[in-house]
Amino acid sequence: MKVGFYQFRPLFGRPKHNCKKILTALENIDADLVVLPELALSGYYFKDKNESLKYAEDPDKSFHLDRMVELANKRNLHLIIGFAEKRINECYNSAALIGPHGIEHIYRKTHLFNEEKFCFDPGDTPFIVNDIKGVKIGIMICFDWAFPEVTRVLALQGAQVICQPANLVLSFCQQTMLARCIENKVFAITANRYGMDKRPHGTLKFTGKSQIVAPGGKLLHRAASQRDELFITEINPREAESKMLTQHNDVFADRRPELYSLLTNKN
Amino acid sequence: MKVGFYQFRPLFGRPKHNCKKILTALENIDADLVVLPELALSGYYFKDKNESLKYAEDPDKSFHLDRMVELANKRNLHLIIGFAEKRINECYNSAALIGPHGIEHIYRKTHLFNEEKFCFDPGDTPFIVNDIKGVKIGIMICFDWAFPEVTRVLALQGAQVICQPANLVLSFCQQTMLARCIENKVFAITANRYGMDKRPHGTLKFTGKSQIVAPGGKLLHRAASQRDELFITEINPREAESKMLTQHNDVFADRRPELYSLLTNKN
Repeated sequence: MKVGFYQFRPLFGRPKHNCKKILTALENIDADLVVLPELALSGYYFKDKNESLKYAEDPDKSFHLDRMVELANKRNLHLIIGFAEKRINECYNSAALIGPHGIEHIYRKTHLFNEEKFCFDPGDTPFIVNDIKGVKIGIMICFDWAFPEVTRVLALQGAQVICQPANLVLSFCQQTMLARCIENKVFAITANRYGMDKRPHGTLKFTGKSQIVAPGGKLLHRAASQRDELFITEINPREAESKMLTQHNDVFADRRPELYSLLTNKN
Repeated sequence: MKVGFYQFRPLFGRPKHNCKKILTALENIDADLVVLPELALSGYYFKDKNESLKYAEDPDKSFHLDRMVELANKRNLHLIIGFAEKRINECYNSAALIGPHGIEHIYRKTHLFNEEKFCFDPGDTPFIVNDIKGVKIGIMICFDWAFPEVTRVLALQGAQVICQPANLVLSFCQQTMLARCIENKVFAITANRYGMDKRPHGTLKFTGKSQIVAPGGKLLHRAASQRDELFITEINPREAESKMLTQHNDVFADRRPELYSLLTNKN
């Protein structure tokens, strides 16, 4: 399976430009699955929910997502793209799984980062696994990395490849995803953006370094910090089927859920 | 609070020697809490359960653990030491929390590593938190690192300092413990051994690099790979009380347990 990411610098509030940038970069691509950054069409640093609603798109009638479906159809691939999702009065920080015939799934970010809490509603979609050409895919977005529960819940459902659109500003995620791939023996693709969102209410700089990690925590590739990069590589998702960390340790079978009950207690 | 570890090289099957080595190293110590390696008295690489039972000690009548209590009393400190625990026909890979007046708690390793499965019974003690001079301490042993559930369950109960006796042979743990301290905002003390256990059934080499990590994943100190080291440092355990990772993110309050239900399903 040919998988990868496209790391670029979306411009704030310029979805047409950002959409065209993606379409051009992926014009002649040969891949099965490409992960794009979080909020790749709108840019990231909204002031409040009024503003995020202004730039959010209803996936049932989004000009830009329709272009992504066309691209997926033309190149016969799947895309995972972060976008601001409008649903009447709700606004979610979402990721769409897009196949050659349309949107196949939408995941709404569960764990909102910092000021996102003033711009988005918390996600209400369960963690589920999607099938792409027989390969099981799990989706998380950016700050979900800080919660080991996310990758675990996806991996326990059989996810072989974790796809993570991101707009990272902290430095912890990339290294932590190695731990996620050790403890769950999965692949993980982190598609981060770079550059800055300079807004009247503040400036944020994003960290780039998009990466692909193999089961066991092996870093297959990490992009530079502040540069466009389209990276595609061949992986064998079946490597994620074995959960053996040693000859006698299956990291899933060895779990002791009867001792973990606190994890699902309500706060 | 003055905390630390003693990294050394226990000799297989020579508890008297290993005990004396610890007593000598800690003879004049000024500390509140010192973590010692896993199976620090017996050595690690048992052939089978018959052999581990032969070297295991009943904590109610253990000459060597009694010496540790004496040391804790003399120096007015707490020790956490890994030992093979004998209970009639059961044998556990355990850690004792030892205070000036005796053994205060015993934790039995939950997730057994590789061939340990042939030498020990799986731990049956719940993950609980102990109080040392007003500071909340959680205990895990070595391979428990591979299960993010362990640190999480301890931290959710208020553990400020995670203490981990270890006999590590893989290279993943030290880096993964940084992730544990980011996602849970706790301190972690990993007391590893070094050197080799050369036995008729095989040889294992241990990786040293004992370490202390602060909340947020800051590495305060990491020992060399193959050298004795007694390391003590002052920490402020109250730093582990704030779970804020950003201005608006409390990594515990932000959890969404209603979406994590798979984590406590029986295998």
